[in-house]
Amino acid sequence: MMAPTYLGAIMAFDSFEADVVGVPVDALARLLQDGLRPKLLYTIPEHQNPTGLTLSRERREALVALCRRYHVLVLEDVAYRELGFDGEQLPSLWSLAPDVVVQAGTFSKIFFPGVRLGWAAGPASVIARMAIAKQNTDQCAGALGQRLLEEYVRGGHLDDQLVRSRALYARRCAAMMAALEAHMPDHVTWTRPRGGFFTWVETGVDTVALAARAAAAKVAYVPGAPFHPGTGAGSALRLSFSRVADDEIDEGVRRLADLITTASEEP
Amino acid sequence: MMAPTYLGAIMAFDSFEADVVGVPVDALARLLQDGLRPKLLYTIPEHQNPTGLTLSRERREALVALCRRYHVLVLEDVAYRELGFDGEQLPSLWSLAPDVVVQAGTFSKIFFPGVRLGWAAGPASVIARMAIAKQNTDQCAGALGQRLLEEYVRGGHLDDQLVRSRALYARRCAAMMAALEAHMPDHVTWTRPRGGFFTWVETGVDTVALAARAAAAKVAYVPGAPFHPGTGAGSALRLSFSRVADDEIDEGVRRLADLITTASEEP
Repeated sequence: MMAPTYLGAIMAFDSFEADVVGVPVDALARLLQDGLRPKLLYTIPEHQNPTGLTLSRERREALVALCRRYHVLVLEDVAYRELGFDGEQLPSLWSLAPDVVVQAGTFSKIFFPGVRLGWAAGPASVIARMAIAKQNTDQCAGALGQRLLEEYVRGGHLDDQLVRSRALYARRCAAMMAALEAHMPDHVTWTRPRGGFFTWVETGVDTVALAARAAAAKVAYVPGAPFHPGTGAGSALRLSFSRVADDEIDEGVRRLADLITTASEEP
Repeated sequence: MMAPTYLGAIMAFDSFEADVVGVPVDALARLLQDGLRPKLLYTIPEHQNPTGLTLSRERREALVALCRRYHVLVLEDVAYRELGFDGEQLPSLWSLAPDVVVQAGTFSKIFFPGVRLGWAAGPASVIARMAIAKQNTDQCAGALGQRLLEEYVRGGHLDDQLVRSRALYARRCAAMMAALEAHMPDHVTWTRPRGGFFTWVETGVDTVALAARAAAAKVAYVPGAPFHPGTGAGSALRLSFSRVADDEIDEGVRRLADLITTASEEP
């Protein structure tokens, strides 16, 4: 998988005792040349969880070319694809290479999580096995939620909601970027998302140790370490702007900045 | 597992490459004495799928005593437990031996299948691992369905519905028993359920081969073979009375009886 990445995916792959390796996208070519032969490559091309970053068109094309050449199946998670702030979209990996890509999406971020619905598209042989695996796991997706979603989509409400969601998250992201710029000490860096929910902050301090102090100051974040399959990113953290009220973002970032400044000055 | 049994359970266990063995309940003691050491024993004590049979109190007590003695975890599926026609219930396996039994239930048969909700009760260490496995599979059950179910139960509607469901299925079961008695040739036998959805019919003919002819006559049943982990029960079939309109049961059984009679007379 491209690392850091979605914690839930790492845990799910781990639960099948898969040998999970985190690979920076630019290191993939060399690792494949050196003989790494993954069965599956997992990636979130848009507004990634946890970094908020988006894979460029050039890297998308290089990625699917590599995976096609080395017969690596790609699992493309498009959870945040529809939540780009400017509405622009790069071609999905699946659209570039439907022969080697399984695209998996969710309605959790664009309808509501409690409906527990998603979709997958990919090579027929893979989808057929996924359908059997799903049947053996939960029989089928819930009919009630499917009917609700159908009505919602047919009525045009999903499209309307996406317009509102993009505007909402864009506004909160801008507020968070402004707050980080205003309050963070100079050595701290962060990503500038063009969509989704998250920014990835490099703090220079131990973010696991800092989490308790942050919680005491009523600031919640997720430390970076669990987003790596092994260890690493001990000084990074994931900040989410999706659910925080607009007028609390500045104060939250200010408190976090103070804590980072204090921790940076400790011996 | 006690065999024949629920096809979905066989498929689910198979999907984990478990070594699945079907065991008649009365053979279990000897098999354990002879050294069989299953990790898990799966059984449906009430109104079983596919046979419609219910495990007696004596067999329940003997079963949990055996499993406790040989350290076998029991998975008790109570899908049909609330659907006894006379409302009487024997003690669940879990109530007899909560130390070695995991009880799993579903709201599919008593609320509606599309809500995709169930429950489990059992030893804390097992439930903790089940919770992690569930999280790694589907994150969590749907919040929408859970809220609906909560309202339904708190309002007393589930209890009301159970009274109606028991009466409905009891009436249809009685109609099917009467139809089998009226139409089946003498060599055919069937179970007499005291609850649930199913009766198990021993026909003396190949029920896989017969299925196409039955479908042509607009009679649907499930052949017995798939309800066994390996092979077997080639001449049995499962008849369901739960979903057939009252006034169609007699005609459907009559057509099936004719087909069995014809097949019995073929060389």
